[in-house]
Amino acid sequence: FQMGLAAMSEVVPEPRQKPTVPAKPTCANISMGSQLLGYVGIDTIIEQMRKKTMKTGFDFNIMVVGQSGLGKSTLVNTLFKSQVSRKSSSWNREEKIPKTVEIKAVNHVIEEGGVKMKLTVIDTPGFGDQINNENCCDPIEKYINEQYEKFLKEEVNIARKKRIPDTRVHCCMYFISPTGHSLRPLDVEFMRHLSKVVNIIPVIAKSDTMTVEEKHDFKQRVRKELEFNGIEFYPQKEFDEDMEDKAENDKIREMMPFAVVGSDKEYQVNGKRVLGRKTPWGVVEVENLNHCEFGLLRDFLIRSHLQDLKEVTHNIHYETYRAKRLNDNGGLPPVNNPDSEEQHESNL
Amino acid sequence: FQMGLAAMSEVVPEPRQKPTVPAKPTCANISMGSQLLGYVGIDTIIEQMRKKTMKTGFDFNIMVVGQSGLGKSTLVNTLFKSQVSRKSSSWNREEKIPKTVEIKAVNHVIEEGGVKMKLTVIDTPGFGDQINNENCCDPIEKYINEQYEKFLKEEVNIARKKRIPDTRVHCCMYFISPTGHSLRPLDVEFMRHLSKVVNIIPVIAKSDTMTVEEKHDFKQRVRKELEFNGIEFYPQKEFDEDMEDKAENDKIREMMPFAVVGSDKEYQVNGKRVLGRKTPWGVVEVENLNHCEFGLLRDFLIRSHLQDLKEVTHNIHYETYRAKRLNDNGGLPPVNNPDSEEQHESNL
Repeated sequence: FQMGLAAMSEVVPEPRQKPTVPAKPTCANISMGSQLLGYVGIDTIIEQMRKKTMKTGFDFNIMVVGQSGLGKSTLVNTLFKSQVSRKSSSWNREEKIPKTVEIKAVNHVIEEGGVKMKLTVIDTPGFGDQINNENCCDPIEKYINEQYEKFLKEEVNIARKKRIPDTRVHCCMYFISPTGHSLRPLDVEFMRHLSKVVNIIPVIAKSDTMTVEEKHDFKQRVRKELEFNGIEFYPQKEFDEDMEDKAENDKIREMMPFAVVGSDKEYQVNGKRVLGRKTPWGVVEVENLNHCEFGLLRDFLIRSHLQDLKEVTHNIHYETYRAKRLNDNGGLPPVNNPDSEEQHESNL
Repeated sequence: FQMGLAAMSEVVPEPRQKPTVPAKPTCANISMGSQLLGYVGIDTIIEQMRKKTMKTGFDFNIMVVGQSGLGKSTLVNTLFKSQVSRKSSSWNREEKIPKTVEIKAVNHVIEEGGVKMKLTVIDTPGFGDQINNENCCDPIEKYINEQYEKFLKEEVNIARKKRIPDTRVHCCMYFISPTGHSLRPLDVEFMRHLSKVVNIIPVIAKSDTMTVEEKHDFKQRVRKELEFNGIEFYPQKEFDEDMEDKAENDKIREMMPFAVVGSDKEYQVNGKRVLGRKTPWGVVEVENLNHCEFGLLRDFLIRSHLQDLKEVTHNIHYETYRAKRLNDNGGLPPVNNPDSEEQHESNL
C-alpha cells in the first residue's frame, strides 16, 4: 500500500437542536490542504477485511442443470480440482435416471491460501431426461425460492444469527448440448424463466465433439438465439455498475457461452501433468485455451466474478424475491412459526 | 497467494422429494484425496473484495465526548492527519460553550492508497460544561439510537437501497481529564450507561501534563475504577471470538486507556517533520511512544480494529436495539410513515 494521496473535505455541519451558537460553516471548512500530514492507515481496512475473511471463510453455492450425459459432475470437479460433485468419477451402472427432477445438494469445505470456501454443489438429476419435460423447471425454481425464503425468515427474526447461513444459489450453470444446431425449446424455456430468479451461466458442454469452425459457428448461433429470446444471462448488462464494469463484462459476454471440456483425470503432456481426456489422436487438455474455453470459464466464475455472483444474488435476486413476498403479504414479513416450519420441512 | 493446500470434504447429501434412487453416501464420499489437483483460485476472493471496496469505499463514524478544553478536536485531527473536526485549529474566541449539550456532525471523504473513507466526526459540545450536568447523556444516547432507528427503517423497507447509508456511531471516544486523581462521577455515569449502546474507547486527554510515574499510576487507578464500576469498554471481553482475538485484545485492554497528546502542528526534530507541541523544554512528539501513547491509540483504532468496530456496532449494538424495538412493537418492524418521518425530523 502506498502513502497518503489526497484528502477531499466535504463539510456538512448538521445542527441538531436549536443552535445556541450560530453555525460557522466557513470556519469548519478550513482544511489543511489536499495532502494528509502523514500516513493515517485508511487502506489497512483491506487487510482487516482479509483477516476477517480468513477466519470466517465464505459460502458459495453452485447449481448445475442440463440433460444427463453432458458432463455436469465432471465439469464441477474440474472447476474445483477435486471430487465435489455427488457422483463418483466413474459412472455407477446401478444409478438410474430418476423419473422426476430431483435436487441433490452436497456440501464441501475447500481451502486454498488459508481461505475456506464452504461450497455447495446442487445437482438436478432428471432434468430434460423425461418423455414429457413440461414441468422440469418447477422443482428447480421451487428450490431456489425456498432458499430465499429461508434467508428472509432468518433476516426478519427478532433474535438473529450473527451470520445468516447462506444457502441461496449464487450461480446456475446451464449445460447446452453440443449439437452444432441450435438451442432446444427446453433450453430457451428454462433460461428465459429462471434468469429472472438466479444468475444463469450458460456453457456449451463437451465441446471436444466440435471442430474449431463448428464451435465458432455454434457459439454465434447460440448467442443470437439467447438475444432473440431476451435471455439475460449473467453478467447481466443492466447490472454493470460503471464503465469499467461494462467494458470488462462486454468482453466476457461476447465470448459466452464458453465451450468447455471437463476432466478429473491427469495425463503427462510434454513433461507436465495436466487434466485432460486421452484419445487415440491426442490428449484434450482442459486448461489449454487452444483446446477449449474451460480456463476462461474458471477464471470468470471463480477468479474474477465469484464475489459479484454473491452480491448480485443478494442485491438483485434476493431483493426481488423479498419485495414481492412482502408486497404479497401486505407489507409484512413472513411469520416464523416453529410449527409451520416443521410441517413445511416434512412436506419436502 | 500460495497454491492449493488441502481440500476437506464434508459430504452431506440432502435428499429433497422422495428419492427414486436410494441415496449413496458412500459413493458421494469418495474424494480425490486431500490435495487439490492444481490451483483453483479460492483465495482470489480477497482480491475481488479488495476491488469492490476500492470502488465503493466505506463509512466510519466517530463521536468524541468530554469536557471542553480536553483537546477533542485536535486529537481527531491528529488521528486523521487533517482538519476533520468542525473547529478550526486555532480556537475561535467568539465561540462560546453552549448552554446545553449539542450534537454536531461533520462529513469528510479521506482517501489513502486508493481507498475512500467516508468519515463522520460527531462532536458533543457542552457535555460536562454545565453547572448541573444531570441530563448530559440523554441527547447523546438519543442521537445514537436515532441512527439505529434510521438504519432499521431502511432495512425493513420493501424497496431497499442497495447499500443502506450507515450513520451509526461506530466508536465513541471518551476523554478523561488528566487530573492524576480519579474518574469523576460524570465519567462513570456516562461510560456505564453508554457502553451498553455504543463502543466506548476511553482515552486520557492531554497526557503531557503528567510525568511518566503520574501517568502510570493514573492509568492503573482509572483501569481499576472502570472495572469496579463494571464498565465494559471496547474491545469488550465478551465479544472476543476466539483465543487469538482474546490474546490480542487482552494486551490492548491492559494498556488502556491510552494516555494521548494531539497536535496538528508540524515541527522539525532531528531533521524530520513531526506532529508535536513545542515547549521551552522540548517538543512533545505525538507519534513518539516515549512521549505518549497516541501511536498505540491510532494503530488500534484505525489500523487493526476499525473493521471490527463497524462489525461490533452492527452485530451487537444495532442488533440489541433492533431486538428491543421489535419486541416493544409486538414483533413488528417500525412503520416507515413519510408524514411522521418529516414531523420527527422537524422536532430535532
